[in-house]
Amino acid sequence: MAAPVVAVVGGGQLARMMAPAATALGVTLRVLVESPTSSAAQVVPGSTVGAASDAGAVRALVTGEPPADVLTFEHEHVPNELLEQLVAEGHPVHPGARALVHAQDKIVMRRRLTALGVPCPRWAEVPDADALAGFLADVGGTAVVKTARGGYDGKGVRVVHGVDEVEDWLSAAAEPGGIPLLVEEKVPFTRELAVLVARRPSGEVRAWPVVESVQVGGVCSEVVAPAPGLAADVAARASELAVRVAQGLDVTGVLAVEMFEVTGADGSSHVLVNELAMRPHNSGHWTIDGAVTSQFEQHLRAVLDLPLGETRAREPWSVMANVLGSRHGDLADALAAVTALDPGAKVHLYGKEVRPGRKLGHVTVTGDDLPAVRARAQAAAAVLRGDDVAPIGPVADHAEPVRSRA
Amino acid sequence: MAAPVVAVVGGGQLARMMAPAATALGVTLRVLVESPTSSAAQVVPGSTVGAASDAGAVRALVTGEPPADVLTFEHEHVPNELLEQLVAEGHPVHPGARALVHAQDKIVMRRRLTALGVPCPRWAEVPDADALAGFLADVGGTAVVKTARGGYDGKGVRVVHGVDEVEDWLSAAAEPGGIPLLVEEKVPFTRELAVLVARRPSGEVRAWPVVESVQVGGVCSEVVAPAPGLAADVAARASELAVRVAQGLDVTGVLAVEMFEVTGADGSSHVLVNELAMRPHNSGHWTIDGAVTSQFEQHLRAVLDLPLGETRAREPWSVMANVLGSRHGDLADALAAVTALDPGAKVHLYGKEVRPGRKLGHVTVTGDDLPAVRARAQAAAAVLRGDDVAPIGPVADHAEPVRSRA
Repeated sequence: MAAPVVAVVGGGQLARMMAPAATALGVTLRVLVESPTSSAAQVVPGSTVGAASDAGAVRALVTGEPPADVLTFEHEHVPNELLEQLVAEGHPVHPGARALVHAQDKIVMRRRLTALGVPCPRWAEVPDADALAGFLADVGGTAVVKTARGGYDGKGVRVVHGVDEVEDWLSAAAEPGGIPLLVEEKVPFTRELAVLVARRPSGEVRAWPVVESVQVGGVCSEVVAPAPGLAADVAARASELAVRVAQGLDVTGVLAVEMFEVTGADGSSHVLVNELAMRPHNSGHWTIDGAVTSQFEQHLRAVLDLPLGETRAREPWSVMANVLGSRHGDLADALAAVTALDPGAKVHLYGKEVRPGRKLGHVTVTGDDLPAVRARAQAAAAVLRGDDVAPIGPVADHAEPVRSRA
Repeated sequence: MAAPVVAVVGGGQLARMMAPAATALGVTLRVLVESPTSSAAQVVPGSTVGAASDAGAVRALVTGEPPADVLTFEHEHVPNELLEQLVAEGHPVHPGARALVHAQDKIVMRRRLTALGVPCPRWAEVPDADALAGFLADVGGTAVVKTARGGYDGKGVRVVHGVDEVEDWLSAAAEPGGIPLLVEEKVPFTRELAVLVARRPSGEVRAWPVVESVQVGGVCSEVVAPAPGLAADVAARASELAVRVAQGLDVTGVLAVEMFEVTGADGSSHVLVNELAMRPHNSGHWTIDGAVTSQFEQHLRAVLDLPLGETRAREPWSVMANVLGSRHGDLADALAAVTALDPGAKVHLYGKEVRPGRKLGHVTVTGDDLPAVRARAQAAAAVLRGDDVAPIGPVADHAEPVRSRA
């Protein structure tokens, strides 16, 4: 056999970050990108321009010469019927359409997780305004309404106190072909956690250490690995739940399970599953520099049904800070400043045009001393954003430096 | 400024392994490759096919749109006159021609190192057979004859006991334009060490930990980082010498200084400089997985005159084992076996056609326990070679596990 070929739908930073892993493993990537200047197109030879919704383009990607060994995705917005057809024709697709639907439709996901006994926030479908009003009354007046499909990074999510705040969504949902709504309790969480696992078609599953994810305005801002001060039993429970989801939904490739940690009056905590992503995920970017096997290498191994790599962290702490928007005209303008600031900061630029709030890059810092590691990651990200001062939030407060290796 | 552009002459595995570092930093690579299927061409978009000796091709690489920010190399076989011209026209070239000549011509190198007071093996130019006979008599009858130019991986090097063993080289050297010869004492070394440093045009220099390099038939087979049991004063001396060479020769980019460690009857040792390479080097492949900054990222930073990255090792031990030739038709055939054997082995395949003895890939393993790490790296490389048993040589004998971090 020659170099395995992995076809990838989507040309953003997630496909881009698969390229270094593919280079090392001798795997050929064949990427369907949105434009010739897409983030991934800049670094993957022979990328094809086309829309993920274009069945002909996706089919051509898979059936090229030589045919791809597997089709995978960097986002979930792909036509499932085509995927089913391709599988029927003998082309492996991972994750498969029957798994992917749980990352595409939050109602399907909630139903399935509930059936699997996976703890979720209280939730309900919202067929009409009365159903929403009833749920709001049950949970004390405040809840989170979500569109079942199409949301990401805080889009398609609203915290509401009355039916009138989602009149537009309710009207749209009532139209033929409208996107259904669901409502969830507003969980009084202590913090957000994420568990990243990978699963291969033949069944092997590996999880990375549980991380804390800090969200700002619904968008991931910072990830601390491992989650500081997380009780061992809660960490084990979180990992077990993520593995159960991967197995129960027959997920192949990388799965990110975002969770809420809720701490009771007695100090004990439990977790509730918030969202799923069936692809490499922002909560796993730290693994490039901080773990023996990165999520991008693992995704390639998993979808090719190769044995999975070790997921241990190389150093006690890793902190990943996102660069969301920048005052620089181009992030490359800040390369000299950020490398001068911190020789140990691992800088990742996505080659994307600067727009407000856009994910343009990230920085990972690893080391023994969490407060220092976190301050360094934030300071480096601030330089890339062109900020004057790095904002340091509350994560360090409940962190305890760990000297031994995880 | 937009993404910096680094033009690279040469399309082998060294240029290939610059690609992941360039992707992370948002640097655009523009590579002159030997063929469309070259190792680097497989992973770098828009590579140009052409010979390193083709001045027009090299010039086009540099003066393209946009012009490259710097021209660099993955080997030393480039026309120096052209490089001088490009610099005169305002195109940065790193390393520069005046540094590069020391990696191209061993006589020039020995003269300069001697002038800098850098300890070398006893050596002499060989203008004729009499000069060689005299040197052989002085050193006890055995010496190493080298062609001043064109040698690599054991080629252009012969251990001789008499003039007759290099009659062909002596005749060729006497022709007009013939390659001159030099002779060196056969050093009774204990082992081979290598020091990798990087230096940027504005002067900053950083060295990685000193490594032990195991050669088989003149070709690097294994690298252990750091060199096991190396006395602290010898390590400091070796690093100091490498920095002195980088500064004295005005090297920019990565410099590999290969050394002999010679141990006296009293157990104390000293080092002698053997060879120089002005580019990322096999002795530094371990840095991809084992150090905070890889030699490939550092080379890009150095030639772009960006601040250099931290060079500390992430774990106590890293062992890199080369895959030289293989019984497999394609190394990809062994991907399932090697990943199954060792989930923690970092596998690097170069996408090259299998030929006997050819550098096809490498494996790096990191960890706390050197004998285990070394056995794992060798076992994984053996699987890629298609060997039945992994040969484990003498390195572990004088190794002492080090628990603290370097």
